[in-house]
Amino acid sequence: MEKLKIVKIGGNIIDDETQLTSFLKDFATLKGPKILVHGGGKLATRLAEKMNVPVQMIEGRRITDAETLDIITMVYAGKINKNIVAQLQKFKCNSVGFTGTDGNTIVAKKRPITKIDYGFVGDIVRVEVSVINLLLINDLTISFCAISHDENGQLLNTNADTIASELAIALSQEFDVELYYCFEKSGVLKNVEDDTSVIEHINKSTYQQLKNEGIIYEGMIPKLDNCFYALEKNVTKICIGKPAMLFNSNIKFTMIQK
Amino acid sequence: MEKLKIVKIGGNIIDDETQLTSFLKDFATLKGPKILVHGGGKLATRLAEKMNVPVQMIEGRRITDAETLDIITMVYAGKINKNIVAQLQKFKCNSVGFTGTDGNTIVAKKRPITKIDYGFVGDIVRVEVSVINLLLINDLTISFCAISHDENGQLLNTNADTIASELAIALSQEFDVELYYCFEKSGVLKNVEDDTSVIEHINKSTYQQLKNEGIIYEGMIPKLDNCFYALEKNVTKICIGKPAMLFNSNIKFTMIQK
Repeated sequence: MEKLKIVKIGGNIIDDETQLTSFLKDFATLKGPKILVHGGGKLATRLAEKMNVPVQMIEGRRITDAETLDIITMVYAGKINKNIVAQLQKFKCNSVGFTGTDGNTIVAKKRPITKIDYGFVGDIVRVEVSVINLLLINDLTISFCAISHDENGQLLNTNADTIASELAIALSQEFDVELYYCFEKSGVLKNVEDDTSVIEHINKSTYQQLKNEGIIYEGMIPKLDNCFYALEKNVTKICIGKPAMLFNSNIKFTMIQK
Repeated sequence: MEKLKIVKIGGNIIDDETQLTSFLKDFATLKGPKILVHGGGKLATRLAEKMNVPVQMIEGRRITDAETLDIITMVYAGKINKNIVAQLQKFKCNSVGFTGTDGNTIVAKKRPITKIDYGFVGDIVRVEVSVINLLLINDLTISFCAISHDENGQLLNTNADTIASELAIALSQEFDVELYYCFEKSGVLKNVEDDTSVIEHINKSTYQQLKNEGIIYEGMIPKLDNCFYALEKNVTKICIGKPAMLFNSNIKFTMIQK
């Protein structure tokens, strides 16, 4: 099977124009089929402030009311996504910018209201690969922002990490998928204060041990659970670290393996 | 050659949610390859006001500075375009939402500064049909908003009527293209106050006569010049009127012919 690279970039890269341009220039040179997935960074919060739309957080999570969804759609699918695509074109990487409603690629359902009403937040139901495959085999790079839809006219704010892993799982039927989570740290760290303390390999048994020892905790646990789930579903390889891990073989990062 | 319908909808349809939904429901039923082109309506102006970004007009034209371009990108490519695509999906029309940077489809250059500096406004240099054709032959409907790019990383605000006619011209090599300009009036009117006074056919010689008589004047002249230019460049048919002209054979509209 042909290799497919799915690369997710986080907020810190998007918020820094120089870093983003430098990343996109490198990303454009990656050979073979590839997909970019990006979150939103601080721009959505900044626009909300300018528009006097209050940011509502419950238990550390942003609540997406109708006005916030509009802001997210404008910032993620408009400003960030289209500027990313324009830059990729500059670097001779022919890209199309998608949300999950484009080509009906990512179908979700609105998260049910329980204790908390998250508003217009989507949990992914399925990834439709037909349009994605069509574009990939025609040498087009898809740049996804973190928005899905419910097939009933409703856009939904959706976690970018989950979009990346669900794309990876769905496309594993046709490709040998490598999933790269790029963020500001060098990987999963033994000591969160020390960026050189990268754990270079994690598998299911060392993961359990690292959790037992309290080295992996809190926010990292759902992220890694998600990675192991994707590996069970035939994703070949998952890497976590700085974007440079994609382009420079001397860079340390964390590789997650079954 | 296969027929291709290119349908441009104006601001008045976009600004009215009920009218837009009703139009999209009908549009989704149109058989065969089709492209939607939309402008922006009043939403961009409203967002600029909320953000305290002054709207600068010179000789009746909006100046697109960097902040205004951001607003246009957020509103046209984000909010309006993605909600249109989500609704088309609801009505079982598989669509992708594009600017001219997506798939490198519409290449423009920044309008040169003369007496007036229009800012980030693009004049179309060429339409690249390869990605458009790929999508159309795979039963995907493209929804274009009025933004192009310069292939050097810069998005550019671009007239939606011109995007529609340049798409029509470029795609006339592969398709028998019908171009529909939908707006709030029933067509080109003999008496601008009387919506029943539709001129049903205009050709080059009657156009000259209508101009001489002062029946066609001002803003209508560049629009119609544009139409005749497209017809010279092998576009088959151009229709101007209410969106209903596409779906109801009893509706009067203006047909422009060579």
